Amino acid sequence: MSTANGNHDNDNGNRKKSLPQLGTDSPVAKLGAMEGLPASEKVYIEAGTGTDTVRVPMRRIHQTNGETFDVYDTSGPHGIDPNIGLPKLRKAWIDARMAPGIDTGNRSQMHYARRGMITPEMRFVAIRENVSPEFVRDEIARGRAILPANINHPETEPMIIGRNFLVKINANIGNSAIGSTIGEEVDKLRWSVKWGADTVMDLSTGKNIHETREWIVRNSPVPIGTVPIYQCLEKVGGDPDKLTIDLFIETLIEQAEQGVDYFTIHAGVRLAYIPLTANRTTGIVSRGGSIMAKWCLSHHQENFLYTHFERICEVMKKYDVAFSLGDGLRPGSIADANDRAQFAELETLGELTQIAWKHDIQVMIEGPGHVPMNKIKENVELQMDICKEAPFYTLGPLAIDIAPGYDHITSAIGAAMIGWFGTAMLCYVTPKEHLGLPNRDDVKTGVITYKIAAHAADLAKGHPGAQDRDNALSKARFEFRWQDQFNLALDPDTAKDFHDETLPAPAAKGAHFCSMCGPKFCSMKITQDVRDFVANEAAAAAAADANDVAAGLAAKASEFKQAGGTLYTTGD
Amino acid sequence: MSTANGNHDNDNGNRKKSLPQLGTDSPVAKLGAMEGLPASEKVYIEAGTGTDTVRVPMRRIHQTNGETFDVYDTSGPHGIDPNIGLPKLRKAWIDARMAPGIDTGNRSQMHYARRGMITPEMRFVAIRENVSPEFVRDEIARGRAILPANINHPETEPMIIGRNFLVKINANIGNSAIGSTIGEEVDKLRWSVKWGADTVMDLSTGKNIHETREWIVRNSPVPIGTVPIYQCLEKVGGDPDKLTIDLFIETLIEQAEQGVDYFTIHAGVRLAYIPLTANRTTGIVSRGGSIMAKWCLSHHQENFLYTHFERICEVMKKYDVAFSLGDGLRPGSIADANDRAQFAELETLGELTQIAWKHDIQVMIEGPGHVPMNKIKENVELQMDICKEAPFYTLGPLAIDIAPGYDHITSAIGAAMIGWFGTAMLCYVTPKEHLGLPNRDDVKTGVITYKIAAHAADLAKGHPGAQDRDNALSKARFEFRWQDQFNLALDPDTAKDFHDETLPAPAAKGAHFCSMCGPKFCSMKITQDVRDFVANEAAAAAAADANDVAAGLAAKASEFKQAGGTLYTTGD
Repeated sequence: MSTANGNHDNDNGNRKKSLPQLGTDSPVAKLGAMEGLPASEKVYIEAGTGTDTVRVPMRRIHQTNGETFDVYDTSGPHGIDPNIGLPKLRKAWIDARMAPGIDTGNRSQMHYARRGMITPEMRFVAIRENVSPEFVRDEIARGRAILPANINHPETEPMIIGRNFLVKINANIGNSAIGSTIGEEVDKLRWSVKWGADTVMDLSTGKNIHETREWIVRNSPVPIGTVPIYQCLEKVGGDPDKLTIDLFIETLIEQAEQGVDYFTIHAGVRLAYIPLTANRTTGIVSRGGSIMAKWCLSHHQENFLYTHFERICEVMKKYDVAFSLGDGLRPGSIADANDRAQFAELETLGELTQIAWKHDIQVMIEGPGHVPMNKIKENVELQMDICKEAPFYTLGPLAIDIAPGYDHITSAIGAAMIGWFGTAMLCYVTPKEHLGLPNRDDVKTGVITYKIAAHAADLAKGHPGAQDRDNALSKARFEFRWQDQFNLALDPDTAKDFHDETLPAPAAKGAHFCSMCGPKFCSMKITQDVRDFVANEAAAAAAADANDVAAGLAAKASEFKQAGGTLYTTGD
Repeated sequence: MSTANGNHDNDNGNRKKSLPQLGTDSPVAKLGAMEGLPASEKVYIEAGTGTDTVRVPMRRIHQTNGETFDVYDTSGPHGIDPNIGLPKLRKAWIDARMAPGIDTGNRSQMHYARRGMITPEMRFVAIRENVSPEFVRDEIARGRAILPANINHPETEPMIIGRNFLVKINANIGNSAIGSTIGEEVDKLRWSVKWGADTVMDLSTGKNIHETREWIVRNSPVPIGTVPIYQCLEKVGGDPDKLTIDLFIETLIEQAEQGVDYFTIHAGVRLAYIPLTANRTTGIVSRGGSIMAKWCLSHHQENFLYTHFERICEVMKKYDVAFSLGDGLRPGSIADANDRAQFAELETLGELTQIAWKHDIQVMIEGPGHVPMNKIKENVELQMDICKEAPFYTLGPLAIDIAPGYDHITSAIGAAMIGWFGTAMLCYVTPKEHLGLPNRDDVKTGVITYKIAAHAADLAKGHPGAQDRDNALSKARFEFRWQDQFNLALDPDTAKDFHDETLPAPAAKGAHFCSMCGPKFCSMKITQDVRDFVANEAAAAAAADANDVAAGLAAKASEFKQAGGTLYTTGD
């Protein structure tokens, strides 16, 4: 039953109906449980009592020196058969809030936050982010953070997107007219989540859009985003002129019933802005933006997503679907960065943010695109000002145009910087950007590259505790604990494989040198000797001045030599 | 004959003597001529007359629409047998300056510049950089740029390093005790130059250091740098305590005679600074720095490279070898960034810069390392202030520690930013950093990644003409000229391979869509239609305001539909 009521029980009925077939015919029959990361154990931090109990997963990395290091974990329960889907972690919390006499019809976390409630989702997030539940609530109430959590996606492990929290990353998956199967897409979902995607967008445009999404939502521990206009377009046979607000609302409800957590909606592509793109180098590059532009021009009417925005809001709040207000006029080339078309649309997104907030609906704002480094900061400053600090969610941006095949890198440069300046979530770009559909390897490369960008931003922002992992890894590196260096890395497998290429012997993993310098010639080894020496001389040396230190230390010469400063012993 | 006279004729004799064997026993016998890039033609811009004639190579990319695009080219003459080595492009220029009665014994480009001379090398560079020869001369005279050009490396195509020129990149190669042959290293040299390395450092530490270097220099169209202390250490059996200034000077002369263009010299690792590293997370990570630290501690004496710096200067200026003053105390982890040890050494490098400049010797300053984004700018500002704008040459910096296997990316983030802030040359980092020896693929990945960072910096600096290539590629992309998009890319092969993966048919290279969206669903295609439409309506639309545009355009509705706004035609 497709209604805008967002009835949770009804949805459960729907979900059973649409649960895909099990067994050897299942699209995901060949997918086993996904393997975990090395030397890692899933642990849970528990808090609260009764139905409010939250169990927050962490990945505990065991080091060879007996120490452990816990990291934020998005990988979901281990050993889950994708034919069954994930357990419904949040079901009891949602049911409790939707009990008769309690439910107001607005189920958004922002609505609860503004009424002073701290939901179990907020407490879960507080533990993940190491802040107080009150802080989480206040940031959501203020609109500066969102907690995407559709009432029909109880499988999510709650997470938060906002500039006062860890920078998050999104991975895009989805089939297209050209290819890929449901099994491949579910595999990409789990694969991207394994490597650290904080949310995943299903951008399918080919066959079986509904069924593909069902498999994805039921197997996703992270929020799922979509661009509903893509499915609308399929429904009208690919002709944007036939799109209507009724069809759009119907599609929103269909997807909200399945449990999609945020919708990209290109309501800012106003009719008057379209001519502003005519002299661009690359026109309109957003798919959603160009579909709406085509509709506007054909009908010579204002964008129906803009004129009917309040109707859309009615759907969003009933399911707690968050807005991701799309930047349909984002620049597709360096030449088009920060132009009038882009910033005109941003003004409208600011206006729409206020409308959504009036309904207590969570909102984030999408951003570019292709932007040279010197124009990145302006994007964040304008967005914060115009959209009153609603979380910014950017695609890169790509800092140059001339490296197709490497746009994960061109965009990681922009992403790290824009994250530092205040962007809350970074949408990944894979090596296949502009060229083809990302395969499994591309998805992993994209995710790891964006974990790098997000972490660089967290470090630059001085986010509390962000540097702890760098310190642990660097300590392991300095102490030649090779396995620990690998296991603390964002991608332990690749680090180990690269080391194996030059020094494959297992014994080399305990070597007190690395292949770059070889056994006779290791700067790290020398430094350890320097440190040992200096430790003994600390008081004298610290006081010594550049001009008299030679004299001050001369007396100690023979002592040091007796202590045996042999440096180039091979490690064993 | 190893003397400090740097006699050019004598050097020619040396070179003949040390020219390696040809034929099937040659270490490079298996290397053929390196293949060029697709759709590219080597063209030369000629200027000047007589022995002062300069022929500056460019790579001309031919596009399918008949247009061409010329790019800065470092790839050397085509089709050269590495058994023979490159032609001696600069020999006549050098000979002319070294004629009796003209030669003063100081052969540095800075010396000539300060005397008001514009050398052919400077004119060559002016054409490459599209500036005036006078500007080149003045920047060199001022010390704000260097033109590394050993009189015994006449094969170089002159290039310049300075913050008012294009940002340059360096690739490190070299064998180690663990492995690799001369043939592999010469191959890596040519490979890195093919992909755009502006200079190459030979960091060999294993067997055959001298012979490897000879092969590299004779086949390199770009300046070659070394770290002479590595060879010194080999000469004393790996015991740093046995190093002496006499051995060091002898080694400098040996390498200068071969034609090395710049030397990394760790003269700033002063005795008094060593204790400052004792409490670091990763101590001293520079090989050269740690060798000198060990020597200082063992002898309880000041660094002999510091105390004998003027003796070193005497060698440098006779051959025009440039200083690359090493940052032996650079941070090896985020925790150690911008600490007292690092900046104490920088102060000394500033002092040494003044001494070198007193001798008219060209100088650049090496920089970190591991630095979070928020601490990068301070590095450049301090370096410019302390070293009076001598070119800065940094290794990355790596913006995080936790991604071994991806440190080309972690460092490209820092490199792009530090380049924007004023760093003149970026030393590449490969995916094998911290883990193993880079192979051929790693070298290419490192070079392309750093071309990206350098270009991002050029764009952000607003370097004149830097954006032209982005504009050309984006135009090709927008017009579905796939081959042109590939050929204008930094790595045409990878771009084409990635496209082939999804759409292998040759016809797809003319397709008016891409695999990401498929034939029915292409935003670029829609935009072209929008543009066509808007072009007709330009006057009306430009004047239209957000509130009345609907009315203004309404009259044109049927006209547009008659014009046939069919969007989703497949390209053919």
